[in-house]
Amino acid sequence: MKKILPIILVFLLILQTGCVNQKNIGELNTRPPKYVFLFIGDGMGWPQITAYANYMGTMEADFIGTLANPTPENPPVPLFPSFTRFPEMGIAATQDASKFIADSASAATAIASGVITLDGALGMDAFGNPVPSIAELLRDQKNYKIGLVSSVSIDHATPSAFYSHLLNRRNYYDIALDLIASGFDYFGGGGFRLPYGMDGDMPGILEQMEEAGYTVANTYEDIAALGSDSGKVIAIAPVLDNDRGDAALLYTIDRSEDDMSLSDFVRIGIDVLHGEQGFFMMVEGGKLDWACHGNDAATMIMEIHDFYSAVGVAVEFAEKYPDETLIIVTGDHETGGLSNGFNLTGYDTYMNLLSYQKISLTRFAIHYILPWRSAQTSFEEAMQSVETLFGLTLPQNASDETEPLLILSPREIEMLREAYDLSMIPFKERVYDSEEYLAEYSYYWYEPFQLAVTRILNNKAGLAWTSTSHTALPVPVFAKGMGAEHFSGFYDNIEIFHKLVAILGLEN
Amino acid sequence: MKKILPIILVFLLILQTGCVNQKNIGELNTRPPKYVFLFIGDGMGWPQITAYANYMGTMEADFIGTLANPTPENPPVPLFPSFTRFPEMGIAATQDASKFIADSASAATAIASGVITLDGALGMDAFGNPVPSIAELLRDQKNYKIGLVSSVSIDHATPSAFYSHLLNRRNYYDIALDLIASGFDYFGGGGFRLPYGMDGDMPGILEQMEEAGYTVANTYEDIAALGSDSGKVIAIAPVLDNDRGDAALLYTIDRSEDDMSLSDFVRIGIDVLHGEQGFFMMVEGGKLDWACHGNDAATMIMEIHDFYSAVGVAVEFAEKYPDETLIIVTGDHETGGLSNGFNLTGYDTYMNLLSYQKISLTRFAIHYILPWRSAQTSFEEAMQSVETLFGLTLPQNASDETEPLLILSPREIEMLREAYDLSMIPFKERVYDSEEYLAEYSYYWYEPFQLAVTRILNNKAGLAWTSTSHTALPVPVFAKGMGAEHFSGFYDNIEIFHKLVAILGLEN
Repeated sequence: MKKILPIILVFLLILQTGCVNQKNIGELNTRPPKYVFLFIGDGMGWPQITAYANYMGTMEADFIGTLANPTPENPPVPLFPSFTRFPEMGIAATQDASKFIADSASAATAIASGVITLDGALGMDAFGNPVPSIAELLRDQKNYKIGLVSSVSIDHATPSAFYSHLLNRRNYYDIALDLIASGFDYFGGGGFRLPYGMDGDMPGILEQMEEAGYTVANTYEDIAALGSDSGKVIAIAPVLDNDRGDAALLYTIDRSEDDMSLSDFVRIGIDVLHGEQGFFMMVEGGKLDWACHGNDAATMIMEIHDFYSAVGVAVEFAEKYPDETLIIVTGDHETGGLSNGFNLTGYDTYMNLLSYQKISLTRFAIHYILPWRSAQTSFEEAMQSVETLFGLTLPQNASDETEPLLILSPREIEMLREAYDLSMIPFKERVYDSEEYLAEYSYYWYEPFQLAVTRILNNKAGLAWTSTSHTALPVPVFAKGMGAEHFSGFYDNIEIFHKLVAILGLEN
Repeated sequence: MKKILPIILVFLLILQTGCVNQKNIGELNTRPPKYVFLFIGDGMGWPQITAYANYMGTMEADFIGTLANPTPENPPVPLFPSFTRFPEMGIAATQDASKFIADSASAATAIASGVITLDGALGMDAFGNPVPSIAELLRDQKNYKIGLVSSVSIDHATPSAFYSHLLNRRNYYDIALDLIASGFDYFGGGGFRLPYGMDGDMPGILEQMEEAGYTVANTYEDIAALGSDSGKVIAIAPVLDNDRGDAALLYTIDRSEDDMSLSDFVRIGIDVLHGEQGFFMMVEGGKLDWACHGNDAATMIMEIHDFYSAVGVAVEFAEKYPDETLIIVTGDHETGGLSNGFNLTGYDTYMNLLSYQKISLTRFAIHYILPWRSAQTSFEEAMQSVETLFGLTLPQNASDETEPLLILSPREIEMLREAYDLSMIPFKERVYDSEEYLAEYSYYWYEPFQLAVTRILNNKAGLAWTSTSHTALPVPVFAKGMGAEHFSGFYDNIEIFHKLVAILGLEN
């Protein structure tokens, strides 16, 4: 293959020269949108959206009774989220300045500030210079109010790329200080990972926010009282997923009725931001990415649903202000190397099997696997809970009620048992840096048994993952409203920023 | 998850109702294009295109010397094929009437005739009624000349959906009879799988074509003589890949200088078809799909290159007739569940490793693995050829020249050895229907050792596959020229036909 490469490259350059590029934005004949929503599904590419669509389509067929009896009159219909049918759709490539595969910081910086940058960098270009985000430009040049919402902590990579300027996305305390300094008008969703610094001895972030004039609302009562007269606001879900210090919203699949959703925080954001001035709101479906990192499709699908519902709130708003609103929905990169197809299921899928899952990967790990390790619970006993939580059933436990496709095969039992045995060994005693371990279970923070359970359930449904990291797959960009027409075509993700700058009449 | 489903579904229906759908084609203010090219990369989704782009970008960086020394000034640049920068881009969903995952027959029928149909059906709807293809409508209603080109046999699913009407894509002899009956003007590329029927006792297809007035050209001399005065033509590559009776073009990676490429057949097609009348040419990159089925990225990338070059011929033609030409480039479905990311390589890729591969999966299986089985060659001896053909090197064979990343680990050697041992057992004596075998090696026609070798090389490069079948991933549609503006947005693949019908002013 190597011998013909020079020929290929020359040929390629010739073809590239003749290449017709994307329509230039050029002169704009529309007013800038007064209200801009930017939804970022972290880790959400077409594979994730397709899994969601096929799951929802399967469950609807189950609901109306055509799943068991497919006929040409009742073909399988994927139910794609309606944002995929926004009037304009583009595809964005996601490589950063370090690699073909971006991390969430460099990807968010590309979208927020229009620069290709290094892995881990927030609001900085690849040479270490701070670069303004679209939110900062709108604040400074157009007096727009700014809101940032995330289902993970508000100091996490995606939201912080809109207000922070640091080379290391892990400096959570410094990031939080940048958040306060931004003076943005609304923060909603998760809290802070290190509100008192790494050693817990620094001045509290929430206290500093109050001093800076923010209304801090983290009880149901305080949140219910928020409105257009609340001034600058940070609203943090009263109940957070803090099992690992994440300060994030609960996974949608784990929520009870009272627990707050991404759409709640978009709704509050609209209440807080809507007024004389224009506003810009970035909304991240952040736990979508985490579910993909952990190769857990059911949890991911529910996160897409939460994200989709949040988009619905913006669409509802846009219906009231159709000539003043722009809504963009995109992903920052694909996570997990998800495919809607697996060797053992071939051309078939059995997406309804995912409906048996009742708990997220993380809650399963923390609330079940860790106690099992402490108690050195037997595999057989643990599998009774796995049956309740995921539907996966040992043959000896199967009854007439059991879904036949969920009865485990000898191969699957062996995989589960091997993973279970590993999970029963304390971290420190585990050989987790062997190629065998890494190929199967990757980084040590994933419990082998957690990964094995969701992967086997996913495989049975016809889904499979290749990685617990991100991948290089380009992601979709859906746009609706004022200026949406500029988001069609194929471009690098940095163009999202540049298109917004042009549409909004900003100087950069 | 099940408990909240009714709520979700109701919610979904509400959202769907408010959904803004794709722009209607409505009144057209352009003349129909006189020349229409439809390129179908079989199995080509964004994962395949991205792997190609990242490979080419890596090799260019290697070529200009920045690969070994990446800096912010020299970020990784994927070289996406220029057809991805066509002025318009859409995404097409590919589910058929049987499943979320289409086969090549139903997918081709969707594109060719605009109907959702059953797996395996050619030019028939899901109820068994024949439906006209866009090629037939253009022949009958507009007197366009019709050309079909494929790198696989011309009776294969994708080309035959444009002229055949049968429920079973495997009826190759009947399909060939439909080909003759179509009276289309040009067929180019591969030959026929069963030119004398299943038992070899039927009247020869080529003989019948000559009787029907076709110029049959399957020698270099006859092919060189083809031109606008040749009448109706079938041009078959003088050297075919017939190792498995495929009657296909050789894989690009296996070709010598004399061997014909997809672009050769597009060029000939233009010579044959171009005249007073308009023409429609469908060009399939069919072996792209086969390389993906076999989970062989290097071979796939070279097939994309061949396909891309063929698109280049049409682009060159369009530059001469810009106001009369429409070019569409799409895939029919994704194959293999390819991801540009793998657990063991994490966020990194090492795409240059693919350049060590010098042979296609099939040639490797037929010309190496089968003889090794006959001779019961030792693993160690076989691995010397593997080193030459794929770069993968046993530690004891490594020298100072060896690329360190290609030295095999104990885990990889174990995987290779297991696959090799299986491949040394004759088919009939092999237990190939166990879940273990199917999960790893799938259908029996893939040699375990062939799959193991390319997968390990791919994994080292940072690529991974989840299946040897197709997947449900939507595919891109790129369009350039007259009427191209109708191909943006997200739609079902059947819309490609309906858009063409509208643009071309046809009645259906």
